[in-house]
Amino acid sequence: MNFSSQLLEGAVNAFASLPGIGKKTALRLALHLLESEEDQVADFCQALVNMKEGIQFCSKCNNISDTDICSICSNLKRDASTICVVESIKEIMAIENTDQYFGSYHVLGGVISPVDGIGPKDLNIDGLMERIEVGTVKEIIMAISPSVEGETTIFYISKLLKDKAVKISTIARGVAFGGELEYADEITLGRSILSRISYEK
Amino acid sequence: MNFSSQLLEGAVNAFASLPGIGKKTALRLALHLLESEEDQVADFCQALVNMKEGIQFCSKCNNISDTDICSICSNLKRDASTICVVESIKEIMAIENTDQYFGSYHVLGGVISPVDGIGPKDLNIDGLMERIEVGTVKEIIMAISPSVEGETTIFYISKLLKDKAVKISTIARGVAFGGELEYADEITLGRSILSRISYEK
Repeated sequence: MNFSSQLLEGAVNAFASLPGIGKKTALRLALHLLESEEDQVADFCQALVNMKEGIQFCSKCNNISDTDICSICSNLKRDASTICVVESIKEIMAIENTDQYFGSYHVLGGVISPVDGIGPKDLNIDGLMERIEVGTVKEIIMAISPSVEGETTIFYISKLLKDKAVKISTIARGVAFGGELEYADEITLGRSILSRISYEK
Repeated sequence: MNFSSQLLEGAVNAFASLPGIGKKTALRLALHLLESEEDQVADFCQALVNMKEGIQFCSKCNNISDTDICSICSNLKRDASTICVVESIKEIMAIENTDQYFGSYHVLGGVISPVDGIGPKDLNIDGLMERIEVGTVKEIIMAISPSVEGETTIFYISKLLKDKAVKISTIARGVAFGGELEYADEITLGRSILSRISYEK
């Protein structure tokens, strides 16, 4: 592409570095900001910097939060005796959008994947065990994407909990094999939480 | 969408305010930046702010530029006696990408559109006239989108130049290369027959 301005080229390259944004879309976005008011560009950047600098991770469940304890963990109306174990915050958002689940969450930060060099120690499994050690947790729901890595992670955690008085369930396999949880439609995802299946440990 | 962080929601809304970016894409982009290094986010924002604060408009042709006179106007190898008149800098980039034009440009900043309240005074037509007054311009090429507003703008400028010794041309209109004749719209096809080109045998 021919740019008559290196400053424009810099902005286009910045947008094009984002996932799923090609050069043409990047140019459209950069030109949109170029035509906007200076305040709008400043506000846009401020929102991104605020997010990056201000966001914390809940010290209990590892969810993103504006405070030390996230709004879900600190909500007394939610059932703290049920923990839904997820890979990332994307799944929390997807499940919250179903309006079918009122327990708490636990973000692992990924799944066990030897190919990618991710072992149990790289995940937030110790934090989950600590929460269960307290003794108030009755059930954990494994809302992990149905893949080989996901199944391995569920199996690993179930072994750790073998002698604990905690029921383990997985969300119903209404979600297609190979499908990504975050892209599942709300009805399917909601029902798969309601009809979760007891996991044999 | 349920966000457990207002900071994340702010960043998502910032992305979603851009044209063609929906909520799901905005979330994906915001989470990408959340997972990136802090430097990357700062660099991203810096590129946008630099563009917004640093970009000037060429005092000759109104193209965007990092300096007072743009790189095209200040290029002595380019033919300053031919001016290609365009609506916006997007068309300059498109024409530059063809590698077929070596003259100069003039950006109008839009087309005459009474419906949108855009009259000749809102466009950079005076600047074009000043450049022609100097007397060195031999031809202006109207590379304006073929719409009612575009045709009106071409007609208006042609009237202003009636008594000037300047040749006016428009870019060729016709069926696109590689296009199927049967799918060409009637107006394009009709005009391409009326303005047929003599074939050298």
